[in-house]
Amino acid sequence: MLVPVTDIARPRRSARPTMKDVAARAGVGLKTVSRVVNGEPGVTADTERRVRDAITALGFRRNDSARVLRKGTTASVGLVLEDLADPFYAPLNRAVEEVARAHGALLVNGSSAEDPDRERELALALCARRVDGLIVVPTGDDHRYLAPEMAAGIATVFVDRPAGRLDADAVLSDSFGGARDGVAHLVAHGHRRIGYIGDRPHIHTAAERERGYRAAMAAAGLPVPAAWVSAGPTDPDRVRAETERLLAGPEPVTALFTGNNRVTVTVLRLLAARPRPVALVGFDDLELADLLSPGVTVVAQDAARLGRTAAELLFGRLAGADGPARRVELPTRLIVRGSGERPPAD
Amino acid sequence: MLVPVTDIARPRRSARPTMKDVAARAGVGLKTVSRVVNGEPGVTADTERRVRDAITALGFRRNDSARVLRKGTTASVGLVLEDLADPFYAPLNRAVEEVARAHGALLVNGSSAEDPDRERELALALCARRVDGLIVVPTGDDHRYLAPEMAAGIATVFVDRPAGRLDADAVLSDSFGGARDGVAHLVAHGHRRIGYIGDRPHIHTAAERERGYRAAMAAAGLPVPAAWVSAGPTDPDRVRAETERLLAGPEPVTALFTGNNRVTVTVLRLLAARPRPVALVGFDDLELADLLSPGVTVVAQDAARLGRTAAELLFGRLAGADGPARRVELPTRLIVRGSGERPPAD
Repeated sequence: MLVPVTDIARPRRSARPTMKDVAARAGVGLKTVSRVVNGEPGVTADTERRVRDAITALGFRRNDSARVLRKGTTASVGLVLEDLADPFYAPLNRAVEEVARAHGALLVNGSSAEDPDRERELALALCARRVDGLIVVPTGDDHRYLAPEMAAGIATVFVDRPAGRLDADAVLSDSFGGARDGVAHLVAHGHRRIGYIGDRPHIHTAAERERGYRAAMAAAGLPVPAAWVSAGPTDPDRVRAETERLLAGPEPVTALFTGNNRVTVTVLRLLAARPRPVALVGFDDLELADLLSPGVTVVAQDAARLGRTAAELLFGRLAGADGPARRVELPTRLIVRGSGERPPAD
Repeated sequence: MLVPVTDIARPRRSARPTMKDVAARAGVGLKTVSRVVNGEPGVTADTERRVRDAITALGFRRNDSARVLRKGTTASVGLVLEDLADPFYAPLNRAVEEVARAHGALLVNGSSAEDPDRERELALALCARRVDGLIVVPTGDDHRYLAPEMAAGIATVFVDRPAGRLDADAVLSDSFGGARDGVAHLVAHGHRRIGYIGDRPHIHTAAERERGYRAAMAAAGLPVPAAWVSAGPTDPDRVRAETERLLAGPEPVTALFTGNNRVTVTVLRLLAARPRPVALVGFDDLELADLLSPGVTVVAQDAARLGRTAAELLFGRLAGADGPARRVELPTRLIVRGSGERPPAD
């Protein structure tokens, strides 16, 4: 079931319910409601559930600005990343921080390390530590666990990937269109046998990019044998083995489309060691990609803009912006540098 | 004055003072001491100072494990980085997270954005949000503000750069030795006119690397005209202008030693556009540095090991490891790839 967060988290200003109303409905004291809302200990699971139900029913929303003043501490925003070691998230992270800073808020972030349980644990821990808002690069595919927090007034925006089973703001890149354009670029340079190597298909961005690859092939009337599509973990060993496989045999692919920067780096290393040139277009830009020979043609996302847009959306919500959950999709950009313009080897 | 943190933060187990003792000495209630120790609001500045004084005088140290149990929440560790957009910190960040995870603790991190005030604000905000331990990549040069937190039992380890005016654990790379070896490598390949472009000299690592450059030049009996040394902000415009300057004139330098990865990237872009080859050794490795032609010879730090070592030191302290503050220095590694082996152009 889809939780209508927009209805419960952002009531009309006219009749905004108070903590008193919540306490009355839940049949508990004001302090207990405050404990639940602020994630403080000392409340039984049963009582907490009753308070959460009352909050949801009444559409209670904590007044953050007043709360920050009451707390006498700086406002803070939590950012849950997916992989701290992935350079793609560095500019996104930095951009979120700059917007938070411009709003006088502290940014506190952590990583789910691609583990849905860790994501949930971290997001709820940040809520318990009283962040005023949350930006999440989701790993899991069910985010209903955040509905009570959002109902309690913690504004939440998803970035890079949408929320699962939860109606929430999301800021994404056009993975489908970007991948389609990148593969069409290879087709335009005479390639007919084009392989795709990407991340696990349960990841929204990976699925969208594979869909874009298939759409471009279909639009060109080209077949896509199952052997040309390799979706799975992005660890170098798997990617190396799959690249070797796609480039072997009597009818090897003459071009590769790689689904993200981790895959591209591994493929570049492997291609550098091969005599026969292979055309390559990668999703995501890489530092120094312009300095390789040939330069690496990529479909670039604007990671900083993703972060900035998500953060601005979040602070808009914290400032009381009402309205239904928004989905913002940012365009990608094909950067032509040489590797994607190589003609078919045969 | 140097705060003898080791004395006040880690008293002998025998007579460990309790919150009761602190309350008695400060002449306040137990709840007040708890508020101060846990960074909760509702305590006047004057009362807080009295409690802090009592904590320091008695050498009270909060029992973290018991506290975590009492809180009924996961233990958490705060990591204060210096620049979220610098890929150097990505593996360090990831390594700290992996150690924290192995200890069942959450990692919560943020960045000072190279602003000492932000660093202080963020570090204290993390303490107020009840992290059990803190790892700091320092930007400022006076960390006495953390002494009361350390006295209250928040284990703190500095990484990449040492603490300023505070006796605390630190895990560093051998910046001096690494830079000296990198410059000696250029000397060994026939260079006599070697320029240095690095970060602002008030930064510990930058000062150490410039010192290493000067030591290698002196060891080779080579003069270092002031014009060959450029220490300042690492923004591309400044670095480009300084590189052009060092490579201009009747007696240009024939080799460059760059003080960190940000500087190296800008210099590589500029050199790629010049006909005349210039030898280059950079401090810090870069993704794809091995794929450029020539490959980039670098003095590599083990950023992951820096993070892992700091985190293990921190959890050791949290587990009650006594003893004076430790300084761990990790070796760097010269990686020969081609750019540093070019002979002098003339």
